[in-house]
Amino acid sequence: MPEGFRSSYDVRVRFAETDAQGIAHHASHVIWLEVARVAYWAEHAGGYRAIQEQGLEALTTGLRVDYRAAASFDDVLTIHLRCVDVKGARFRYEYRIERDGELIATAETLHATVDATTHQPTRVPSWFLEAIAKAEQV
Amino acid sequence: MPEGFRSSYDVRVRFAETDAQGIAHHASHVIWLEVARVAYWAEHAGGYRAIQEQGLEALTTGLRVDYRAAASFDDVLTIHLRCVDVKGARFRYEYRIERDGELIATAETLHATVDATTHQPTRVPSWFLEAIAKAEQV
Amino acid sequence: MPEGFRSSYDVRVRFAETDAQGIAHHASHVIWLEVARVAYWAEHAGGYRAIQEQGLEALTTGLRVDYRAAASFDDVLTIHLRCVDVKGARFRYEYRIERDGELIATAETLHATVDATTHQPTRVPSWFLEAIAKAEQV
Amino acid sequence: MPEGFRSSYDVRVRFAETDAQGIAHHASHVIWLEVARVAYWAEHAGGYRAIQEQGLEALTTGLRVDYRAAASFDDVLTIHLRCVDVKGARFRYEYRIERDGELIATAETLHATVDATTHQPTRVPSWFLEAIAKAEQV
Repeated sequence: MPEGFRSSYDVRVRFAETDAQGIAHHASHVIWLEVARVAYWAEHAGGYRAIQEQGLEALTTGLRVDYRAAASFDDVLTIHLRCVDVKGARFRYEYRIERDGELIATAETLHATVDATTHQPTRVPSWFLEAIAKAEQV
Repeated sequence: MPEGFRSSYDVRVRFAETDAQGIAHHASHVIWLEVARVAYWAEHAGGYRAIQEQGLEALTTGLRVDYRAAASFDDVLTIHLRCVDVKGARFRYEYRIERDGELIATAETLHATVDATTHQPTRVPSWFLEAIAKAEQV
Repeated sequence: MPEGFRSSYDVRVRFAETDAQGIAHHASHVIWLEVARVAYWAEHAGGYRAIQEQGLEALTTGLRVDYRAAASFDDVLTIHLRCVDVKGARFRYEYRIERDGELIATAETLHATVDATTHQPTRVPSWFLEAIAKAEQV
Repeated sequence: MPEGFRSSYDVRVRFAETDAQGIAHHASHVIWLEVARVAYWAEHAGGYRAIQEQGLEALTTGLRVDYRAAASFDDVLTIHLRCVDVKGARFRYEYRIERDGELIATAETLHATVDATTHQPTRVPSWFLEAIAKAEQV
């Protein structure tokens, strides 16, 4: 596990995620980050549905990916991630995508918790804050 | 226009829709059929939102595609389609996907109109029936 | 395991695979079928790369899906599949997608082995035939 | 046209690009940026195939998206883009995604031209440099 990361999940590159350059399309990484967040929430915070059951949604408000090496069909990728900078209605995830220890990409995503109906920003629930603090031991 | 078809719409194959075989991935065709249906509804029946505004959704209940020739990045494909067999809550679309007159695929999709909340089957609204009849001149 | 099936693999519905109807988009099933085929090949026939290393590709030439019940975000779906009707350059897969024993969809896909460069049909290699026969015990 | 931009292309949000939050999924924007780049290359530089015919590919090496407002099914979005900072094997695109003048997202992507076979960095061809300079009038 890279220093500073306590959670990681694997994905296997699907054939449908490749493109005519013979490698994983760069939008696929964005999906994998989401898959890892969902797994993180399931492990640490009762699942994304726990948020939804409170009438909230977590929107993605920002995205950054630095691609370092190509991923190919059937590669098993490990997505290390951590949740940082939770304040107000906002939080951020940082990621390292690796393949057998080789760095494939680094990334970060920004999120805001909003009311599911109005999409107005709503403070991150305290139980989620506590779950993150426990997961990250910060 | 192939015999029996009165509506057609174009799509251009996106790079993201290709795969490592160097051709359009076979799931892309399924998306293009939907793009063509949406365009058909916009042209003939006030748009898909007209259905939604009545508290209805049109679910896809069946799908068949016969792939005849590969499509490639940046190809312009023409999707000919017609709506047939409207009865009760059900209707069907038939398609020919062509590239400069060459047959790329034939397809059909089955649909059911349902209540948007309960997903219970609900008869196709009469104005939609009339719109289809006019579009297909049947 | 449903009668007649000897292989099955699980997928978890990704958030990106849902649509504004609140359910898994009907093109997602097509991707899952492919994920299950890749897993089947890995388990029974040395992986899809074994085909590619011989200069072959397996194209998808046909597709049929009957959707029986909606799948939702985070559902774990079991894809039962079997390879049947291998002859010449062609073979077929049949599928049942289930969620805790409830039928979500049935499907079939048709395939042809082709030369990777020319895309000309090429007989299914004998080792693949034997691997299928052993997997299906036919 | 926003100040500093000379090229723009439209996309219509596909139903398949929405998610269960009822809005366009945040990975869809990444695809639209690519669609706009391909259109830009077609308008200004002989199409992406001109690059491929020289044995080159343009890889995406970096990505940043700031999401400002949700996009919905059937929205027509205008993607304004410009190519900047071309040097060596690298170039960058900046984007504004708008809906009827309302800002939906800003973005940038980083690219490297590489040898299609070896994926080794290769200087941006001079004709491409000239095409960009003419398109951007810099």
